[in-house]
Amino acid sequence: MEPLRVAVVGAGYWGPNLIRNFQSCPDTDLRLVCDADRSRAERAVGRYSTVRVTDAFDEVLADGAVEAVAIATPARTHLDLAMACLESGRHVLVEKPLATTVADGRKLIDAAAEHGVALMCDHTYCYTPAVRKIRELTLSGALGDIQYVDSVRINLGLVQRDIDVLWDLAPHDLSILDVILPPGREPLAVAAHGADPIGAGRTCVGYLTLPLRGGAIAHAHVNWLSPTKIRTMIVGGSERTLVWDDLSPTQRISVYDRGVDLREDAVSGDQRHQALVSYRMGDMTAPALGEGEALREVVGEFAAAAREGRRPLTDGHAGLRVLRILEAASESLRLGGATVPLNGWLDGADH
Amino acid sequence: MEPLRVAVVGAGYWGPNLIRNFQSCPDTDLRLVCDADRSRAERAVGRYSTVRVTDAFDEVLADGAVEAVAIATPARTHLDLAMACLESGRHVLVEKPLATTVADGRKLIDAAAEHGVALMCDHTYCYTPAVRKIRELTLSGALGDIQYVDSVRINLGLVQRDIDVLWDLAPHDLSILDVILPPGREPLAVAAHGADPIGAGRTCVGYLTLPLRGGAIAHAHVNWLSPTKIRTMIVGGSERTLVWDDLSPTQRISVYDRGVDLREDAVSGDQRHQALVSYRMGDMTAPALGEGEALREVVGEFAAAAREGRRPLTDGHAGLRVLRILEAASESLRLGGATVPLNGWLDGADH
Amino acid sequence: MEPLRVAVVGAGYWGPNLIRNFQSCPDTDLRLVCDADRSRAERAVGRYSTVRVTDAFDEVLADGAVEAVAIATPARTHLDLAMACLESGRHVLVEKPLATTVADGRKLIDAAAEHGVALMCDHTYCYTPAVRKIRELTLSGALGDIQYVDSVRINLGLVQRDIDVLWDLAPHDLSILDVILPPGREPLAVAAHGADPIGAGRTCVGYLTLPLRGGAIAHAHVNWLSPTKIRTMIVGGSERTLVWDDLSPTQRISVYDRGVDLREDAVSGDQRHQALVSYRMGDMTAPALGEGEALREVVGEFAAAAREGRRPLTDGHAGLRVLRILEAASESLRLGGATVPLNGWLDGADH
Amino acid sequence: MEPLRVAVVGAGYWGPNLIRNFQSCPDTDLRLVCDADRSRAERAVGRYSTVRVTDAFDEVLADGAVEAVAIATPARTHLDLAMACLESGRHVLVEKPLATTVADGRKLIDAAAEHGVALMCDHTYCYTPAVRKIRELTLSGALGDIQYVDSVRINLGLVQRDIDVLWDLAPHDLSILDVILPPGREPLAVAAHGADPIGAGRTCVGYLTLPLRGGAIAHAHVNWLSPTKIRTMIVGGSERTLVWDDLSPTQRISVYDRGVDLREDAVSGDQRHQALVSYRMGDMTAPALGEGEALREVVGEFAAAAREGRRPLTDGHAGLRVLRILEAASESLRLGGATVPLNGWLDGADH
Repeated sequence: MEPLRVAVVGAGYWGPNLIRNFQSCPDTDLRLVCDADRSRAERAVGRYSTVRVTDAFDEVLADGAVEAVAIATPARTHLDLAMACLESGRHVLVEKPLATTVADGRKLIDAAAEHGVALMCDHTYCYTPAVRKIRELTLSGALGDIQYVDSVRINLGLVQRDIDVLWDLAPHDLSILDVILPPGREPLAVAAHGADPIGAGRTCVGYLTLPLRGGAIAHAHVNWLSPTKIRTMIVGGSERTLVWDDLSPTQRISVYDRGVDLREDAVSGDQRHQALVSYRMGDMTAPALGEGEALREVVGEFAAAAREGRRPLTDGHAGLRVLRILEAASESLRLGGATVPLNGWLDGADH
Repeated sequence: MEPLRVAVVGAGYWGPNLIRNFQSCPDTDLRLVCDADRSRAERAVGRYSTVRVTDAFDEVLADGAVEAVAIATPARTHLDLAMACLESGRHVLVEKPLATTVADGRKLIDAAAEHGVALMCDHTYCYTPAVRKIRELTLSGALGDIQYVDSVRINLGLVQRDIDVLWDLAPHDLSILDVILPPGREPLAVAAHGADPIGAGRTCVGYLTLPLRGGAIAHAHVNWLSPTKIRTMIVGGSERTLVWDDLSPTQRISVYDRGVDLREDAVSGDQRHQALVSYRMGDMTAPALGEGEALREVVGEFAAAAREGRRPLTDGHAGLRVLRILEAASESLRLGGATVPLNGWLDGADH
Repeated sequence: MEPLRVAVVGAGYWGPNLIRNFQSCPDTDLRLVCDADRSRAERAVGRYSTVRVTDAFDEVLADGAVEAVAIATPARTHLDLAMACLESGRHVLVEKPLATTVADGRKLIDAAAEHGVALMCDHTYCYTPAVRKIRELTLSGALGDIQYVDSVRINLGLVQRDIDVLWDLAPHDLSILDVILPPGREPLAVAAHGADPIGAGRTCVGYLTLPLRGGAIAHAHVNWLSPTKIRTMIVGGSERTLVWDDLSPTQRISVYDRGVDLREDAVSGDQRHQALVSYRMGDMTAPALGEGEALREVVGEFAAAAREGRRPLTDGHAGLRVLRILEAASESLRLGGATVPLNGWLDGADH
Repeated sequence: MEPLRVAVVGAGYWGPNLIRNFQSCPDTDLRLVCDADRSRAERAVGRYSTVRVTDAFDEVLADGAVEAVAIATPARTHLDLAMACLESGRHVLVEKPLATTVADGRKLIDAAAEHGVALMCDHTYCYTPAVRKIRELTLSGALGDIQYVDSVRINLGLVQRDIDVLWDLAPHDLSILDVILPPGREPLAVAAHGADPIGAGRTCVGYLTLPLRGGAIAHAHVNWLSPTKIRTMIVGGSERTLVWDDLSPTQRISVYDRGVDLREDAVSGDQRHQALVSYRMGDMTAPALGEGEALREVVGEFAAAAREGRRPLTDGHAGLRVLRILEAASESLRLGGATVPLNGWLDGADH
């Protein structure tokens, strides 16, 4: 199969990572790097590169050899740039979040469908060995029924100029939830709480609570102000509970065969209650994980989906589901923490 | 000073710890241990003890030598037992929570005032070397303005028969907040979210969000279903941020001289925003902590307050402030997560 | 079975722990506590105890009700005290080390045999859930052939007045090795290196290297000067490798299904060598461990061995094997690190 | 200053890292990459590179534009390749170890001196922010007198075909010691112990003990067979003790203000000894460290030394001092662990 000929638009924070991975992936051929600041594009490819750079987005569109475009620019520009690419028949990979509104996201999905090209959202974490393993364990039923998911993603982060901490960091948690939650555990609503204790003009410490279908719950803590970096997720199941510590150098995933069991007849009579709750205290297992770079998997999946004419794992709909929660979370913040339902989560267009 | 002559009522889960500490404290003299199950009282004192045991609470009241009573029975019995002791002129130490309602808690406070005796709530954590150090750092201003407090207290806990996880575990977090928050950072309201994914009939996974006066925020995650035990608290300040890991064998408190600063003129013009946020990346310091057992400090404080006729650090009012948040949290849960104001937090009677 | 009637001699550092466990064990009956400093004995039993105390060792010997004696005094007194007890027909539990010389240790073993009583060495670590699990895994062959054992036991320890760090701390490592090494992996020799960089007059930092039968190796690092406390042991096997972190609050034992394999024909030809070394990267498992206090198991084993007329797990011979290595280690230190053979490790008298 | 024009010889394990850093360093200009296997050189520069590749070492020598050569080939080839470069007037950066014998190392040093070019040994660790900080603290006296250094460097490492674990891993520890030990604490001798429990034909588990001038001691544990990766170094000083955990994602260096003090008069009388040992239990500080890639510093130092005509921090003499200990360690292994003196450590030629 011929390598997919790609251009990268945006050479700021994330672009250089895409550039590096498109270069190392045998299934892609990097043709062009575009940034409004040409010197930034030049720095991104380096002094020894044969890759062409430009500061004109039109040049990307005009280059007939370019089959696909990766967009790593600020979110507010996603709609226009991605739309132009899709309408010119290019496959598109967009940085998270897909767009700034659900409505804009839908437009991109529709355009991709109309032009028969792939639209992929770069939910990088979904391609890490850890999330792939978690997904395997939740979808196979190895953890049993999912009871709760608790995610913490905090560190001394760059206070963004145009988005709050929920829009900056929670897309990671939400995109992970999107791929690991089994059918029947979809988010039903969201309540958001936050604070801006430094007077930055936007939420810097945020909490999301998502009631899940079936009585389960998901929660995420995102925070730009923490001097310690923590990235953990606990996925509690009726059979086993998984703890993911993304910063552990040696043991990222731990699966505990430990939990609380309630016997069926336990709820009928209060007297007998205590005796009918039992505790399992079994072993813990840390599965061996691969070491591959997630973004390398992202560009590989993008190339494969484009070549095979199929939807990528994290397609536009996945991006849209994340957007919908972010929008509802912003509304919840405005309403002082009220629980905002996620109507239409499961409507046909999204799945 | 003569040791304070005490009786312990309740020899179940916590009582034996009180018994051990009353015996080792030179300022107390343990006279009597009472439990409705006499054999439990006997086991608590052991086979080699000279301490008297009884299964009759009346015997405690009737023993003229008993000056003070520690009550370690289920919360629903606190009102009656504590009231009887207070009305008979005994100093009283009550397990957390002080009572099951704010109204009952007030009755106990009033009775203690009327009879001129000490009423203390056993907020054990407040007497640990770690919390004492945190309090010293927050009240002295060493951390700067408090911006957020995030607490996690999760493990495979005993699913209680009569209370949910908020009433079981959050009193620890709330009593700690009560002593470490500086004036001007009082909780204004509470929103509670929770789930009962095992069908236990009560919340097993809970989240509390407390907006604090002045734009700060506190949050607590309490959970009976986690196979890993985590007990951490982050206290974010404008000057320094403190991380308390209560389970670390070697480094319980870490103080980071790291953070985000916003210059005064930064909020006026969006253009200049990014440049005006600055990041400090200084050293971290882990202060040396003492090794004393917290409960030993509790019984010492109880004896000292009784002898000196003063209010203990965690008096009935402290217990009442915790109760008020718990009541509001239960109401928030009933209302689906609505934010419930803590009216009267600062009223005269409580401070 | 009637509880074993015991006396404890020595109420200093370790004695109080023995006293507490003899009191809580249903198979023992604590009659008497003896310390040359009577007030220390009194403090050890506490103000509420019915246990008799004395400062006269003769009173222990004279008490016909005392069937067994636990000796927790300085090592230099072990021979005389233990010998007197053994010769009067008492079962004896001795703190580690058994005695100060191999010759003295043999005398105690002979006396116990002659009088038909149990002689046990309090190798407490051997009774922890962790060491019991390690022993189970090494003896069952679950780890495969034992290839190396690396132990680190360092912290800011009390610089002892009469013994160096090897005699103070290494008995722990050596007694653990003694119960976990399978037949065919006995220590053959010892080389000791050390330093006294603070001028304390004795080795404060020490390293022991023990070639084991069959080409394996054991090594221990003991250190009084380290501000961080580390207690880890790695047991490397051909099938699995075990890591024991005794200070981990949550995961003391980790068993890695990971290692290096060499195919049989790999050694014959250099060219093919690299290809014939293979690496397994399997899962890690942390087995659930019990929570019992080790010293409680020690006193239970002592009582059972005495009542059943059998040798305890850590009998006098175990104590002697540890002594022999300590003596050889001291000789190695004197010789500047020379490797000193452990002749007679396997002679009939010791096994 | 014109960038230094360099060639890289060897594109196997380490070469690609050198290539990447020579490309990103503004002070160097990468001209040529040479590997006997041309396809390996091509893979190392990638599909988008303008850098020339060759499989002919002569081409490096023949390229008049090449001023400096970095050699990342197996150790046994260092002498010939480096010598050819030095004799043709090129500055040379050599992978560790400098050569395979002390005699060969000396030849390279002499040739560099004769031709007036820089000879640098790539002791990468010495350029990490952690080692730079440690060096700053040991040389400034902030730790007080150095009392002991304990290094552990173990993981599931590639069993090498031509060298044992001491020659593979210990150069890291020894080169670090070389830059952090203050004057007066030089290694005086070395004793090596090891085992080859898998029958690989060479030592796979090794221990080095180095008595240091002034009564201190250094020790290193290197191991290819450990399924857990550990990289720690403890530097014990009379004032403070430093712990370096190179794998900690968040706290690589911890400095403890904790230790054992001996008063001057403490050694004279045994009776008073215990009272005269005192323990400090102060705070711990984790200094903020930079995040720079060490190898980027290496190539920067190489360029600067070449341009400025000065000796680099880790020059040929540093490489030779490491070689001398490795040779002595191999001799100690052959002698069954005997302590081998490092005569001439301080002779004029080496400093």
